[in-house]
Amino acid sequence: MANIEPRVLRGFRDYLPQKMIPRARMLATIEGVFQRFGFQPLMTPALEYLDILTGKYGEEGDSLLFRFQDQGGRDVALRYDLTVPLARVVAQHPELTLPFRRYQIAPVWRAEKPARGRFREFVQCDGDIVGSADMAADAELVQLAGALLEGLGVTGYEVRVNNRKVLTGLMHEVGVDDPGREAGILRVIDKLPKIGADEVRRLLASECALDDSQVSRVFEFLGISGSWSEVLAGLRALFGSGSRGLEGVRELEELHAIAAAADAGSAGSLVLDLSIARGLNYYSGTIYEVFLGALPGYGAVMGGGRYDGLVGVFKGQDVPAVGISLGIDRLLEGLFELGLLAEERSVAKVLVTVFSAETAGYSARAARLLRDAGIPCELFPAYTKIGKQLRHAERSAQRWVVVAGPDEVAHNEVALKDLTTGEQVSLALSSLVETLRERQAAG
Amino acid sequence: MANIEPRVLRGFRDYLPQKMIPRARMLATIEGVFQRFGFQPLMTPALEYLDILTGKYGEEGDSLLFRFQDQGGRDVALRYDLTVPLARVVAQHPELTLPFRRYQIAPVWRAEKPARGRFREFVQCDGDIVGSADMAADAELVQLAGALLEGLGVTGYEVRVNNRKVLTGLMHEVGVDDPGREAGILRVIDKLPKIGADEVRRLLASECALDDSQVSRVFEFLGISGSWSEVLAGLRALFGSGSRGLEGVRELEELHAIAAAADAGSAGSLVLDLSIARGLNYYSGTIYEVFLGALPGYGAVMGGGRYDGLVGVFKGQDVPAVGISLGIDRLLEGLFELGLLAEERSVAKVLVTVFSAETAGYSARAARLLRDAGIPCELFPAYTKIGKQLRHAERSAQRWVVVAGPDEVAHNEVALKDLTTGEQVSLALSSLVETLRERQAAG
Repeated sequence: MANIEPRVLRGFRDYLPQKMIPRARMLATIEGVFQRFGFQPLMTPALEYLDILTGKYGEEGDSLLFRFQDQGGRDVALRYDLTVPLARVVAQHPELTLPFRRYQIAPVWRAEKPARGRFREFVQCDGDIVGSADMAADAELVQLAGALLEGLGVTGYEVRVNNRKVLTGLMHEVGVDDPGREAGILRVIDKLPKIGADEVRRLLASECALDDSQVSRVFEFLGISGSWSEVLAGLRALFGSGSRGLEGVRELEELHAIAAAADAGSAGSLVLDLSIARGLNYYSGTIYEVFLGALPGYGAVMGGGRYDGLVGVFKGQDVPAVGISLGIDRLLEGLFELGLLAEERSVAKVLVTVFSAETAGYSARAARLLRDAGIPCELFPAYTKIGKQLRHAERSAQRWVVVAGPDEVAHNEVALKDLTTGEQVSLALSSLVETLRERQAAG
Repeated sequence: MANIEPRVLRGFRDYLPQKMIPRARMLATIEGVFQRFGFQPLMTPALEYLDILTGKYGEEGDSLLFRFQDQGGRDVALRYDLTVPLARVVAQHPELTLPFRRYQIAPVWRAEKPARGRFREFVQCDGDIVGSADMAADAELVQLAGALLEGLGVTGYEVRVNNRKVLTGLMHEVGVDDPGREAGILRVIDKLPKIGADEVRRLLASECALDDSQVSRVFEFLGISGSWSEVLAGLRALFGSGSRGLEGVRELEELHAIAAAADAGSAGSLVLDLSIARGLNYYSGTIYEVFLGALPGYGAVMGGGRYDGLVGVFKGQDVPAVGISLGIDRLLEGLFELGLLAEERSVAKVLVTVFSAETAGYSARAARLLRDAGIPCELFPAYTKIGKQLRHAERSAQRWVVVAGPDEVAHNEVALKDLTTGEQVSLALSSLVETLRERQAAG
């Protein structure tokens, strides 16, 4: 075989152990929270028929699909998110008991232009409730978002919400009734925190063809601020009776009331933010973005919303649904920045050394005793000089080394070395577990 | 948007919650065992450059790659296994401290003809040790395989081993020295348990062009049986001095000695099985297959071996490596058959009902109290008749229902209903957690 340059595709990456160790712990915490909320795990294929995916994300989304023809000539694509596959599952499996709440943690693929922090493969973690149009579902996801972050030690987070019906009401007020044009305007508004007000004004005029008075109306809307009740009152004043916007206002009010009743003791806040628009086409009501308050400018770590029309694309009959998606890798980096997680060099803190082929069985027996007692340990799997094995332990940030040379084996003993103090004691193999437990408990 | 038929590609599947719930528990157990053994988590991309993958699995493997050109005109493919990507990572990241042990649980894709139990997407779970040529590493994987199964409650498993050097020695004995021809013969021998001796004889003659005396020699070899020492003695008698086969015999003997010393109290057995050949090209020494003794004919749930030449394909310099791979979905089905796991209808055993928009906040508060206390519960997320909510709990196999209607809300109470007995009690919201804990502890 030829010598092939080892490399990964642009926008793809390997996750090496120092990041994967805290990441695995983070995922275990997240799964625990989902289960406490009664969310059910679900798994769907990475590859879907192309027509399952196209037409739901908007033109830009469609253009980012990794698509190809498989060996059987079928048009297929790698999934772009976990929401459309969920809608497909619900339509395909009428045996599912509704309302159905599920979580899924899995990679998605988007052929975006790679940039700092933007990858073509990244892991999403979604929680969705399908089969309820009531705000109790939307409020449950606010609870979930908070519990996920609090489970990871985050305080001071902000769950920012808005409602697409409010935005549609605004579009009606400014005289835009074409859904395609509306989507374009919302995409521009959505960029407000990134590009600033002047650039949004410019784009609304140039790309969306809004005139000066329309742009002013949009900014009048975006300028409504204050407490929840003040903003809701401001919106009511803006919308004429019968406006779709008023339905959105009522939904926001109900969502806030439920969340406020449940939220006593919450470590975060629920904020009404009229500039939240979300880029995807399928949202129809509540929309969410969640931010780490302690990292201003870091961008959203979660986002989502209500998509009451999506299941109907497959089923012919609408099934209301609402969901929230957490970007695992983005959140992990945020937790690193907050000091809530740190890179780690080794899963095990104990290394069992191996002297030779003749004593390898004895060392393996020692490792087995530790593992059976629930103490993670690494067995050095080669007959290498002991000095090299000790350096391996140091480089892997392992504190304890169990040495079993021919002398120890002959006396049914091991030597236990503490790399932080250099101290070494000899003890019977049979008391290794107990001794190590005592030492580890002593710190 | 048009009405699109919801469907999955042939050979792909959705995993619905009733299977995913026990599966998630199984994966958590497996991760725990890997960590006890000091294996480090690693994640690699689903997509690789095509030339990273081709030429390692054999012609058949190459033909099963899902390959395409991406938007940038690059030839790419979905990974076929987790071993070749690991070899690529080791070659690409010289900063990894060797010996390096990692685990990875991730889907792989093979465009096989779909059949019962054979899918085009399935999840592999691999543990590998890179950077040691010594049998201590091979024996460590025998320990790992046993611990994974024992952690899941399996007893009576069989770890069957052989060694490619022994098989190469045999090929030399029968006069076959061409690696390509050898690979073809080994693939036929590997099918022995599935297709039987007569068919293997026929294929060795017709497809591999072995003559009668060569076929006899192969079967003489396959017929060597008895205890470990008897089989090893039989092999020694077969191979002339200086044969590569003898090196394989020595490795098997050493592997067995280490495993035997460590294995006291093991719930499975280590068997030397000369018919184990493994289909992939890259194996170079020890090969493994692991079977559930209580399910004869079920086929291997784990397989693997030593592949000392694979990293060198990328690095130019060989790095010895050995690994074992567990088929998650196959093992899950086996555990179902053994009664060690069962399908489940719900993660949570408690349902909190919701009466109306006005009381939804109170219900959400009740759910939060339970969850903060670590009691998984589902909040019914819609304002639906209470009878329907109770039926939802029954269908989801939830035992406890917390009812909070306007009366309960007015008195700061809830009603707690036990669906198995029909009993219902009223209690203060503040004592819900304590009461439910007592009832659950009482069984």
